[in-house]
Amino acid sequence: MKLDDIKKLQQKKYRAEFGHFLVEGEHLVLELQKAALHNPLLQRSQLYVTGAYEHWQSPFRTQLISERQMAQIADTKTPQGIIAVVPMPESTALASTANERAIYLHEIQDPGNLGTILRTLAWFGNFRCLLSPGSVDPYNPKVVRSSMGAIFHAPLELDVELDSLPGRFQRIACLDMHGDSLQSADFKTFDCYLFGNEARGVPREQLSALGAKPFTIAGSGAIESLNLATTVNICAYELNR
Amino acid sequence: MKLDDIKKLQQKKYRAEFGHFLVEGEHLVLELQKAALHNPLLQRSQLYVTGAYEHWQSPFRTQLISERQMAQIADTKTPQGIIAVVPMPESTALASTANERAIYLHEIQDPGNLGTILRTLAWFGNFRCLLSPGSVDPYNPKVVRSSMGAIFHAPLELDVELDSLPGRFQRIACLDMHGDSLQSADFKTFDCYLFGNEARGVPREQLSALGAKPFTIAGSGAIESLNLATTVNICAYELNR
Repeated sequence: MKLDDIKKLQQKKYRAEFGHFLVEGEHLVLELQKAALHNPLLQRSQLYVTGAYEHWQSPFRTQLISERQMAQIADTKTPQGIIAVVPMPESTALASTANERAIYLHEIQDPGNLGTILRTLAWFGNFRCLLSPGSVDPYNPKVVRSSMGAIFHAPLELDVELDSLPGRFQRIACLDMHGDSLQSADFKTFDCYLFGNEARGVPREQLSALGAKPFTIAGSGAIESLNLATTVNICAYELNR
Repeated sequence: MKLDDIKKLQQKKYRAEFGHFLVEGEHLVLELQKAALHNPLLQRSQLYVTGAYEHWQSPFRTQLISERQMAQIADTKTPQGIIAVVPMPESTALASTANERAIYLHEIQDPGNLGTILRTLAWFGNFRCLLSPGSVDPYNPKVVRSSMGAIFHAPLELDVELDSLPGRFQRIACLDMHGDSLQSADFKTFDCYLFGNEARGVPREQLSALGAKPFTIAGSGAIESLNLATTVNICAYELNR
């Protein structure tokens, strides 16, 4: 790929156009290489390195570039000198595995939140992550970075409409300000768990149309809300408890 | 306070010198005003607003400034036009309340992690947060922002040395890569829970000197580690379960 085009992969519309995303830095590239061992798509990644990484061991096609060129294509202010251009998996409704649960995120906005959630879902395993239209792009460099490589593991579906859920899932739960405790006997019996946007929560009219059962993480009342990623992560923990 | 001095409060050394920190934006100032109702120290906050907030209701001494002046003192690129200068509480070993547990963070670096942790601890209540020397400053504007106001609630102690813990706490637990499950019968029986730095974890020699009992959050093995804030937040949840 031409360097001018690689630079454009910082932007969502070009990631969609070229079907590739960027993975920056030594740690993430190592995680990518590990994941590529079991994933033929990821094996088609291309690596761009500066002199400092000339002897880097990689199964990917590798090109040496100057530090000036690296500064042009990298997202970070002080690039590490190693960056991969990675083919994006197609977002299709994946075949689900037994015991797998879906986490549906409605219009999640914060890249750090999504990255942390993907990391937690990959940590526990047996989750797939569904993103509504209007959510932050999971191939955004900030999401990729905070996922710490989990982006290569968690099954992910994009642009999943809220009203498509009842057709796919029998029992839907949602996390809300008011609802039953996560320790209720039935909390683990759902196949899809729905979480609303950071500021607005889940749209109320649509929730009742879905027949989603509300659950809540009880607090002391001192502050207004938990962070969205914290809420998802605690639910993922409880489901694996 | 002079505007030139307020601007300096973006930096840790001046926060220490002047004994004040900054709280920026409508949402956080509202949280500050709520917390000040029960906290005489916070009532001595001063507010600086642009014309857009001229009629803002506040118990604090308020000064109208120009948008240009606001841009000078604010941390964010597009300041909201409302900022408070807030006296920092003294960091002393606070009297502990019954049933309270201590969360000790060793050299935590990421402001977003600390902010989210403070938010979760305030959500559940009955926690105090102890920070080691070399941790990120909790009065850093990024921590304040991601705490979503929890900084005004969670009891906080700064510069607490690791080796001071055995003198204060009878039973110390730590979170580590290997250890007992959080669901072990004794996980809830400790009075201090210790968490290591994002990249390096807890220093091994010191751990054994403390006699801290290790616990771990079991995962699938697909990825290397959980995010530090996620680990703390899950433990806080389990302790309140």
